[in-house]
Amino acid sequence: MSETSTAVWTRKDLIALEDLSRDEIELILDTAPQFLAVSKRESGIKKVPLLQGRLVVNWFFEPSTRTRTSFELAAKRLTADTLTISASTSSTVKGETLHDTLANIEAMHSDIVVIRHSQAGAAYILAKRHRSQIVNAGDGAHEHPTQGLLDAYTIRDHIRKTRHDPNADLDGVRVAIIGDIAHSRVARSDIWGLTKLGASVVVCGPSTLLPPHINRMGVDVTTNLREAIHDAEVIYVLRIQLERQQRCLFPSIREYIRLFRVDKESLQAAPKHALIMHPGPINRDLEITADVADGARSVILEQVTNGVAIRMAVMHLLVNSRRNELPGAERSLLS
Amino acid sequence: MSETSTAVWTRKDLIALEDLSRDEIELILDTAPQFLAVSKRESGIKKVPLLQGRLVVNWFFEPSTRTRTSFELAAKRLTADTLTISASTSSTVKGETLHDTLANIEAMHSDIVVIRHSQAGAAYILAKRHRSQIVNAGDGAHEHPTQGLLDAYTIRDHIRKTRHDPNADLDGVRVAIIGDIAHSRVARSDIWGLTKLGASVVVCGPSTLLPPHINRMGVDVTTNLREAIHDAEVIYVLRIQLERQQRCLFPSIREYIRLFRVDKESLQAAPKHALIMHPGPINRDLEITADVADGARSVILEQVTNGVAIRMAVMHLLVNSRRNELPGAERSLLS
Amino acid sequence: MSETSTAVWTRKDLIALEDLSRDEIELILDTAPQFLAVSKRESGIKKVPLLQGRLVVNWFFEPSTRTRTSFELAAKRLTADTLTISASTSSTVKGETLHDTLANIEAMHSDIVVIRHSQAGAAYILAKRHRSQIVNAGDGAHEHPTQGLLDAYTIRDHIRKTRHDPNADLDGVRVAIIGDIAHSRVARSDIWGLTKLGASVVVCGPSTLLPPHINRMGVDVTTNLREAIHDAEVIYVLRIQLERQQRCLFPSIREYIRLFRVDKESLQAAPKHALIMHPGPINRDLEITADVADGARSVILEQVTNGVAIRMAVMHLLVNSRRNELPGAERSLLS
Repeated sequence: MSETSTAVWTRKDLIALEDLSRDEIELILDTAPQFLAVSKRESGIKKVPLLQGRLVVNWFFEPSTRTRTSFELAAKRLTADTLTISASTSSTVKGETLHDTLANIEAMHSDIVVIRHSQAGAAYILAKRHRSQIVNAGDGAHEHPTQGLLDAYTIRDHIRKTRHDPNADLDGVRVAIIGDIAHSRVARSDIWGLTKLGASVVVCGPSTLLPPHINRMGVDVTTNLREAIHDAEVIYVLRIQLERQQRCLFPSIREYIRLFRVDKESLQAAPKHALIMHPGPINRDLEITADVADGARSVILEQVTNGVAIRMAVMHLLVNSRRNELPGAERSLLS
Repeated sequence: MSETSTAVWTRKDLIALEDLSRDEIELILDTAPQFLAVSKRESGIKKVPLLQGRLVVNWFFEPSTRTRTSFELAAKRLTADTLTISASTSSTVKGETLHDTLANIEAMHSDIVVIRHSQAGAAYILAKRHRSQIVNAGDGAHEHPTQGLLDAYTIRDHIRKTRHDPNADLDGVRVAIIGDIAHSRVARSDIWGLTKLGASVVVCGPSTLLPPHINRMGVDVTTNLREAIHDAEVIYVLRIQLERQQRCLFPSIREYIRLFRVDKESLQAAPKHALIMHPGPINRDLEITADVADGARSVILEQVTNGVAIRMAVMHLLVNSRRNELPGAERSLLS
Repeated sequence: MSETSTAVWTRKDLIALEDLSRDEIELILDTAPQFLAVSKRESGIKKVPLLQGRLVVNWFFEPSTRTRTSFELAAKRLTADTLTISASTSSTVKGETLHDTLANIEAMHSDIVVIRHSQAGAAYILAKRHRSQIVNAGDGAHEHPTQGLLDAYTIRDHIRKTRHDPNADLDGVRVAIIGDIAHSRVARSDIWGLTKLGASVVVCGPSTLLPPHINRMGVDVTTNLREAIHDAEVIYVLRIQLERQQRCLFPSIREYIRLFRVDKESLQAAPKHALIMHPGPINRDLEITADVADGARSVILEQVTNGVAIRMAVMHLLVNSRRNELPGAERSLLS
């Protein structure tokens, strides 16, 4: 389908995959390969000046190496200027509201603001009230849309290679997501993204970590790992957040390992060539064993590589859509 | 006057508006508009390579989003390289003196060093002893000269628009500065800058927060808000620093609000079109109500926008003056 | 000798001067002057685009202004993109292993990774297992090779000037290293580097701070400062790390000063024109007096200046060696 896609990006922001149509998601995935080639320097080109003179602000209220770094690199490879504002250095220590801080950032003529915040909805609220183009880099347990996109891209890429069909899509592909579904913004974005693309998703974890009405998102639900993975083409292992355990939502580590760890033994229940994915960082030998994480089926590092290209694609589409909004004369000057 | 100004910038550093002549201040203000146009991308130009290959070091001993970010952006829009050194990562944690740290920075061939420090005089002391061109970004309760400049620019810009006179200056313009005058480097730089430009300044706050001999700076003094603002064209509200309260210098919050808060009610005493200014970050509904801060008279965000342009102007003038010092042959190579 | 050197750099990484041949060390020193000229803007050239589009990651687990800044500037003057990852912001706070963090950095297509870590051997272990070109910026008490190189460069530069011989090398030059030898990675890299270049090294400090078999490294050993410096052309003063004292390895400060401080008085035992060096940051009036550190014999700030050029040389040689590994077609595209 995607090769005939005539979708155009018109949204101001990227907040949640729940909001996007299949066409919009496919537009982003189809835009990524050219940027993947730049990141890999496949043709000797190391940068593309699509965001020259633009300002991308990374505004992170939670620590993050990989996501912040991925956005920063994506912006730099598009030749944007970047600013990083972390919670500790931000004026929020002086009691300023998020709105005021963002209004100040904008007054310095920022273009894209990438925000990670512990409160679900933070990105929405800011996007509604401000001119900046907001990219949600994770808001509480709500969504982490670029993670959902890079995961969908990684799966589609492998399906296309495996089936020797450059236009294959995710219709009917079975994906099992394993772990703490209730507190995972990654799970939520993956579910929205993958189901919209036609995949069939099953979520699996301890019953205390499954949200009550998760089946309304159009997924199957089970507390049995073998049942979840027996027909899965993709096994997506979530990171266990050990701090949850202290809040009594979490079974003992020993019990979790026995019932839900993805390892050689439990994988005997899965199809031989099922892909292994994980959003990182990995707790080795906890939710996944080291041999599986590093094994031939694992595409965990490909996810990281694809992430930079997906974020380049998102930023390019966002800036481009705004340029289209401008009157003709101004548009030509900005090109 | 300014349109006929033939002033040339010859100072090595920018430490305090107290040091500058009216001509020098006007030179900086007159240099800013071209850089404001770049920041706003008014003509499609996003950067000007005036500081290409130069190194601007931001050395901040106090947390700051807006000032640090403003200097960093100003440097980047002039295509300088930037380095940020914050107190926590600096070698001062290892007991090195300020002089040694700066000598080391200079040994790596820095050009401009922007410094914020909690001790009044820190920038002076460093500027005297070192080759670097120092920009004071706030030293204790002493001065914050680029804030004073951006405030003067913002006021002049509005006076010129209101009077439909592109050459209007601040002679006779009445500015009321409200709040904790005693501990405010912003108040001090504003007073020096505005009075040198011909404005008439009145300061107003609780008597415990008015410095004893403040009238020697050429300003009127009152503890009565209505008296301060009744003939003001500009009402400049300072940020309340809540930490002062613990040191018994500060009245109760309730009392401060009753007597000094700038809100709809107290503004009835002021001319209808008086500008509302604040250096940020705002304590909403404490020293100023949200409706006033966000209202039609408020130019608080314009101050932020103008700040980047003023800092570009300052850095350009500084680097340019040094270039003029060099012998002819070397100068041509540096152009 | 060096002017006829035909050495070619073929190593993937720079981990330790212990590993390098004299030819390799001289190759780096001989590569530095062209980059020194760039840093000093001697010919108006401020940057050289040898690492354009490359990614240099500074990954620091210990606080450092000077080393981190020096590497960052070196990378920027070669027009590389830079990323800084400090321990506190790194995913290691989430329990991720060093290997996983580096694998993730690499998945984003990094070229050079500069690492400082408190554990001796950290850089070795990472370099062995990963594709990245690793530069050791200090690993515990093991080595700090770029410091050793910049020190050797600084000494050679002065020997050449003093002897009016542009090809003079370090054969027979006497260098005294004073202080806490046992815990110093700087001492270790200096000893390896200088002895390989033909210098004669004597180490001197309290017996508790001299490693037991240090003489096996080919150096003389003494606990008598005057004996150490009486024939030294270079007196290299190490920084006292006051935290050692608490671990009872260190004599009282008063005793240390009496026996080992380099000051006007103790320097009477040394040749009149002996160079004074120190890796910084200086504890003024502790291991060295202020007048000596700032005196005419001191080249401490030249060390800092040379450091940027040495790091540019190292990064250039590393990237260049890898380019040579590539098949012809790809190489031409990367040029």
